[in-house]
Amino acid sequence: MKRGCRSHCPIAFALEIFGDRWTLLVLRDLLLRAKSRYKEFLASEEGIATNVLAERLRRLEEERLVTKSRPSGGGRQFVYRPTARALDLLPVLLEISCWSAKYDPLTAAPPAVMRRIRKNRGSFIRQIRQQFAV
Amino acid sequence: MKRGCRSHCPIAFALEIFGDRWTLLVLRDLLLRAKSRYKEFLASEEGIATNVLAERLRRLEEERLVTKSRPSGGGRQFVYRPTARALDLLPVLLEISCWSAKYDPLTAAPPAVMRRIRKNRGSFIRQIRQQFAV
Repeated sequence: MKRGCRSHCPIAFALEIFGDRWTLLVLRDLLLRAKSRYKEFLASEEGIATNVLAERLRRLEEERLVTKSRPSGGGRQFVYRPTARALDLLPVLLEISCWSAKYDPLTAAPPAVMRRIRKNRGSFIRQIRQQFAV
Repeated sequence: MKRGCRSHCPIAFALEIFGDRWTLLVLRDLLLRAKSRYKEFLASEEGIATNVLAERLRRLEEERLVTKSRPSGGGRQFVYRPTARALDLLPVLLEISCWSAKYDPLTAAPPAVMRRIRKNRGSFIRQIRQQFAV
């Protein structure tokens, strides 16, 4: 079995790879907020610590969920982009969002976005994928 | 904000409630493996420690994802059952399973079950819900 992988039950497998609170928030930033720079992740409202962020990005790269590259136009800041494996996590993130929008009375989920997701999840996902298409 | 809730972003909210590795494995056991007794959760292949299990079940009750009751026919062992809030997590668990079934070459996800989920997720969910209908 791979590293700390406790079982190959599909839930357990996924949790070993991205089932960490901060990892999922970084994936949210990458996939749903189109963030791509270290400083942008650091600025998220949950207040991730810089060492935690660095470690999580490193792990995401190692798990082939994220690529890290120099910007094509030059510049010093790395650009982080989700891979196909990460884009395939969009349905998971959207289902989590739907659950919270239903049960959190103070939810920050925009009602118009949630309606779009509920009405046609497939088209919502395709639209996000297009942003990352090469 | 509720307790340690870092933001009301729907992803962050959900992670505060069930975004803990062990919590999600207990939810898997409750929802997808029809386990309902302490000893059954303890016996899962990931080897949860008894104190961790007790704490997670307590939290799940506190978050109104689980009810704990004495068996109707008498007996000493408590029966744990998922609430409506927990049943609404089925889409999240199924999307996680689909992702792992795709990316884990050693997946233990039964192909026939995964085919059923992919073909008609709605009917798969309804069938599980029926097991818990009063």
